[in-house]
Amino acid sequence: MLENANFSGVIAPVLTPFGEDGAPDPDRFIEHAEWLMGDGGCTGLAPFGTTSEANSLGIDERMDLLEELVESGMEPLSLMPGTGTTSLSDTITLTQHAIDLGCGGVLMLPPFYYKDPSEEGLFTYFAEVIDEIADDNLRVYLYHIPQVAGVGFSVDLVARLRGEFPETVVGLKDSSGDWSNMKAILDRLPGFELFTGSELYLLDTLRHGGAGTISAAANINGPMLRRLFEECEEPGAEALQERVSAFRRALQPYPTIPVLKAIVAHYRNDPAWAVLRPPNLALEPDRAAEAIRELADRDDFRLDFPETA
Amino acid sequence: MLENANFSGVIAPVLTPFGEDGAPDPDRFIEHAEWLMGDGGCTGLAPFGTTSEANSLGIDERMDLLEELVESGMEPLSLMPGTGTTSLSDTITLTQHAIDLGCGGVLMLPPFYYKDPSEEGLFTYFAEVIDEIADDNLRVYLYHIPQVAGVGFSVDLVARLRGEFPETVVGLKDSSGDWSNMKAILDRLPGFELFTGSELYLLDTLRHGGAGTISAAANINGPMLRRLFEECEEPGAEALQERVSAFRRALQPYPTIPVLKAIVAHYRNDPAWAVLRPPNLALEPDRAAEAIRELADRDDFRLDFPETA
Repeated sequence: MLENANFSGVIAPVLTPFGEDGAPDPDRFIEHAEWLMGDGGCTGLAPFGTTSEANSLGIDERMDLLEELVESGMEPLSLMPGTGTTSLSDTITLTQHAIDLGCGGVLMLPPFYYKDPSEEGLFTYFAEVIDEIADDNLRVYLYHIPQVAGVGFSVDLVARLRGEFPETVVGLKDSSGDWSNMKAILDRLPGFELFTGSELYLLDTLRHGGAGTISAAANINGPMLRRLFEECEEPGAEALQERVSAFRRALQPYPTIPVLKAIVAHYRNDPAWAVLRPPNLALEPDRAAEAIRELADRDDFRLDFPETA
Repeated sequence: MLENANFSGVIAPVLTPFGEDGAPDPDRFIEHAEWLMGDGGCTGLAPFGTTSEANSLGIDERMDLLEELVESGMEPLSLMPGTGTTSLSDTITLTQHAIDLGCGGVLMLPPFYYKDPSEEGLFTYFAEVIDEIADDNLRVYLYHIPQVAGVGFSVDLVARLRGEFPETVVGLKDSSGDWSNMKAILDRLPGFELFTGSELYLLDTLRHGGAGTISAAANINGPMLRRLFEECEEPGAEALQERVSAFRRALQPYPTIPVLKAIVAHYRNDPAWAVLRPPNLALEPDRAAEAIRELADRDDFRLDFPETA
């Protein structure tokens, strides 16, 4: 396992709740974040990931919500907000804002509108962001999710950025679902904080020197993930990984964000939690009930949300 | 040809110049826009299209630049700025801003981060934007460019939006390059203002009741496009279409935005025009010189920019 890591363990891409007016709801957001960092089992939080519907939020909404979270007393060093947009200037704005708030790191998508950008173009983009921020406290985690963003990071580009900015480009979230890509990065860049986006590879990641997982499921299944992280060198680790994987497979037939929100809404007894912002839509009630029933019937899993209502 | 159209003819997705500080340069922008609406042959302008590097600009930069353009005296009814982002709230912000400035229409990408959104989710998104703006002056042109955005509009979705909001969803820019898709829309929705994104299909579009073209090449080749638009029912129309197509094919070996900016930089004798914002990069000087030479050697084409320096 990694020493002196800025982040390690189980990081949740925090779900974003919406209020009755359709705006992000800071109270529900903070409540969920606090639960995640306590009984929820997480070691850190990545607000504004894909699971957070970050790209469905406005630039101002993202900054407002992050400020509210920090003002609520959440330790900013535990936060790795997503700040990567299609736009160099908006990305700089969000990154500067996160650094000003004292966040421990930022999770950065590549600029993802133009497809097939050159490696030189992507390198130049990140170099300009880093040079513009010009702050020793900046810790950039690259966010590789090519099947959604449509633009990813080649291993060569990751190595080049790491080589050019060794104190700043410190890690990567790999949501490709491709273990061979994660392994190639781990083999090539010892000490680099690789987080698997799929907990199916959590044990493999940790055994190859990776830092942990940033996974959608950490919004509801953090305690089990945390236990695997803590006990990864113990004899029962494989069996624990199998339980973690079984849980993920149980969720996989459902669209990720809608099913997670349906589950939180159910266990918190708070229907507002089930709402997504278009183009994403809430799960139909029948499907939501089915997912909740299936998970409740499992022996190996119990959700333990505090009820709000 | 269409009667009572809000827009018709040749519309340029205006290139965005950057100044020495890397920020969008309003003076060069306005100068180019004025040329386009004069000797440049255009009937309207679509600032903040794909060719404009819109998604590389910040939300604030886009609003500032549009304000400067309108304050310079440009007729806002001739403007169809791009306002579609990944985010419902930023899209509403940009759209409201364009309407407040009196723009004749807006060109809206679908929310393009999440791939394979449901048709219901996309419909709901556009319905929420339109309901939130709630202004009779709003004219939405859908922007179909699936090979870049990663998310497009099915013909059924176009028809549903048109049916639900007949006074508001008035047209579409089809940059798919797929004539069968354009024809399907034209056949199904008489009176709908379809603009082909590729001038290869300008004559076909006009003969099937379409409104014109919104094409990158209109940044430099507007006069020829305008002549084809005006003379589309005359005997020489096919020959003119062939010249238009030959010009486009001459540009096609080069990346579109870099080559257009290199050409403008050359003819305006203003190297700053050649700059793009990462992840897009300027054409290498050798390639730029080659493109300029090839176009200059053609009999059927002459660029007529005023020189600035």
